[in-house]
Amino acid sequence: MSESTIAALAARLAAGQTTSVALTEQALARIDSHRRAGGVAFIEVDEAGALAAARAADQARAAGLVVSPLAGLPVSIKDLFDVRGQVTRAGSRVLDGNAPATADSPAVARLRAAGAVLIGRTNMSEFAFSGLGLNPHYGTPRTPLDTERIAGGSTSGGAVSVAGGMAVAALGTDTGGSIRIPSAFCGLTGFKPTARRVPLDGAVPLSTSLDSAGPLARSVACCAAIDAVLSGEALDARPTTLAGLRLYVTRDFVCDGLEAEVAQAFEDMLSRLSAQGARIVPFDFPELRRLPEINAAGGLTAAEAWALHREWLSRDGDRYDQRVAQRIRRGEQLSAADYITLLAERRAMQRQAAERLRDADAWLMPTVAMRPPRLDALDRDEDFFATNGLVLRNPSVINFLDGCAVSLPVAPGIGLGVCGLHGQDARVLQVAGSIEPLLH
Amino acid sequence: MSESTIAALAARLAAGQTTSVALTEQALARIDSHRRAGGVAFIEVDEAGALAAARAADQARAAGLVVSPLAGLPVSIKDLFDVRGQVTRAGSRVLDGNAPATADSPAVARLRAAGAVLIGRTNMSEFAFSGLGLNPHYGTPRTPLDTERIAGGSTSGGAVSVAGGMAVAALGTDTGGSIRIPSAFCGLTGFKPTARRVPLDGAVPLSTSLDSAGPLARSVACCAAIDAVLSGEALDARPTTLAGLRLYVTRDFVCDGLEAEVAQAFEDMLSRLSAQGARIVPFDFPELRRLPEINAAGGLTAAEAWALHREWLSRDGDRYDQRVAQRIRRGEQLSAADYITLLAERRAMQRQAAERLRDADAWLMPTVAMRPPRLDALDRDEDFFATNGLVLRNPSVINFLDGCAVSLPVAPGIGLGVCGLHGQDARVLQVAGSIEPLLH
Repeated sequence: MSESTIAALAARLAAGQTTSVALTEQALARIDSHRRAGGVAFIEVDEAGALAAARAADQARAAGLVVSPLAGLPVSIKDLFDVRGQVTRAGSRVLDGNAPATADSPAVARLRAAGAVLIGRTNMSEFAFSGLGLNPHYGTPRTPLDTERIAGGSTSGGAVSVAGGMAVAALGTDTGGSIRIPSAFCGLTGFKPTARRVPLDGAVPLSTSLDSAGPLARSVACCAAIDAVLSGEALDARPTTLAGLRLYVTRDFVCDGLEAEVAQAFEDMLSRLSAQGARIVPFDFPELRRLPEINAAGGLTAAEAWALHREWLSRDGDRYDQRVAQRIRRGEQLSAADYITLLAERRAMQRQAAERLRDADAWLMPTVAMRPPRLDALDRDEDFFATNGLVLRNPSVINFLDGCAVSLPVAPGIGLGVCGLHGQDARVLQVAGSIEPLLH
Repeated sequence: MSESTIAALAARLAAGQTTSVALTEQALARIDSHRRAGGVAFIEVDEAGALAAARAADQARAAGLVVSPLAGLPVSIKDLFDVRGQVTRAGSRVLDGNAPATADSPAVARLRAAGAVLIGRTNMSEFAFSGLGLNPHYGTPRTPLDTERIAGGSTSGGAVSVAGGMAVAALGTDTGGSIRIPSAFCGLTGFKPTARRVPLDGAVPLSTSLDSAGPLARSVACCAAIDAVLSGEALDARPTTLAGLRLYVTRDFVCDGLEAEVAQAFEDMLSRLSAQGARIVPFDFPELRRLPEINAAGGLTAAEAWALHREWLSRDGDRYDQRVAQRIRRGEQLSAADYITLLAERRAMQRQAAERLRDADAWLMPTVAMRPPRLDALDRDEDFFATNGLVLRNPSVINFLDGCAVSLPVAPGIGLGVCGLHGQDARVLQVAGSIEPLLH
């Protein structure tokens, strides 16, 4: 399964060349090998539930019933979603005492109704509050590209589960890059839809303004197929010709201080797109440089995370990853007026973006400004916070603008962000799908 | 003009029985009499501009051009809307030094494009921050029903302008009842639409979450005609039969401590509706009783007003109505987390309301729990704040729920609130229009 797309696996199932039970057993065997080799992609694996679902999918298929392209395929679930009968921990120890969820979150329920085999709960940055995926409680997932280097986060285990053939796709969330960063670091395709597209009920929130849920998978078509299930709305995202596409590129902010290899991969991609007849349109967006100042006090995420966590922190603060606790506690200092001003700044920047990108088919940027860093380079807090800030910088622009984006794997550990504004999900998937053939 | 509806005046204009210039001169003469009698409905009257617009409307009509039912009719504008060439003061002295607006706010521009004659800027509670309409800078408008009693606010002058035949309708705003309270106190019909329905750009905000703009006028049809202009969307709000309408009534919270005459008028109305075959459906909504606690620290309005006013207050705090300044300053104490919690409480109560009112055609309540109080009963701050709280209590429920409502004049100084949830504007106008014939 390791290199297969949803369509390829669905075709093999349809042709009788494999079964859901076989695919699920293969995924479980890979999880087992992964764990025996010290891998920490999963916090909890539901072997019995997965095999039962696989058997049910095979029986349904034998009876002529195939409810979706995902039917019978193993999918992993980020630990912050409620799954009936499982404890939702959000990568923390603070919620250990919670009762198992009595119902699936809507996103999970939709996957289950589509016939997906829910293989297990994946590791993550505690409460999804970092872009690196370090987790002192459950261990830190590494990218399959280089086991000395991190997988990225916060959907760290989800990315490793797909990259390692333990699931055909992962359900993740993205508040500042948490789908796209690990997709870039692990060689996958990730899709962060517009925030309101996929219901977030029954998922532990990080930032109610910025959170979104979406897939990490092996192709744009895989992402579109899962998005259709998660959102309940199939988008027409069929690839088009590259010739004439208006692909906007700004050097402002998102190209500052790129690692040389990232800059090179990005420029190479622009050249290849240009050679195919796409129009690379440079544009200015100097207001982006105000983002660090606008978010200097922690931004919407710190404010909203503090509102959720203040009781838990006062009771169980010493059980948190102290780097996470420290970031959440910044939200305590924000006043209501500061927060309201932040929301007004956000609306103003959204208007500016809409003007500047009015004629764009998509906005391209490096998903992340650097390749996956070495885990041992993040021991000191100052290195951790500086690296985390740089890694989150580019993808979080899109969350702030309430937009959507695909990350395409353009080179080992390097992603191309194909970005759009609010509700431009179909267009972004379409443009990403049109670029995808150039990757191989 | 004093008792005329838009339709009646439009018919007289169409029949050549009067002219826009005649109606405008009559309105200006009434304003003059009102002022000479000590009335303070207007902060600024644009006699020259109004007469020029009236002449233009008459000429257009003579040429066969009648752009809307409002063409050639005098309309008053609350002092917080930008009107090209006029200083926007929002009932305050703090903005005296501002330059005249260089453009109409969109709501005003739409009235102007519909041919309305913009007769002048009406008095209001300073910055719209009270439901009583007291204004120490420009005087306090009184209800025409009893000049010892207040007109209500914050659209105090707007209501008096219509009740006194100085305009056929008033453009007002409503953050917690500021259209409906003065409508009830002055014997008018007022419509507070769903907040996002009418653009609020170019209007001084009070609460960006709760503000809405709409008309005060002489009938439901007048309100619907103006709403169509203000929103750009004509609603089908034709009256229907009362028989079988499901009119929901809760005794929880909104019927606590009603003045006896208000309770009597409300019960009388329910009896008459029932006699016409409407179904009065009692329902429980105990969560409403949590509103005082939810808003104990000043609520969304204090938080959002403080975000806007903090600089002005630090510079010019002594020029504010000190009761207004005191209410705004409560917002300084709110943290971002308090505010975020408030928004979450709001969403939860919206969900409860949607469930409880799922099968309702409308929700009826007394617009205000009391009749217009005497001005001299509001001298002491504690009386002012207690009365203001009681007057705002019922209408502000609808703003908190992001709903819409009409206030119908059921008895002198007493309004019937015909209320709906988000986006139910057409239904609320329709039900109110169906009840209206019972009023006369």
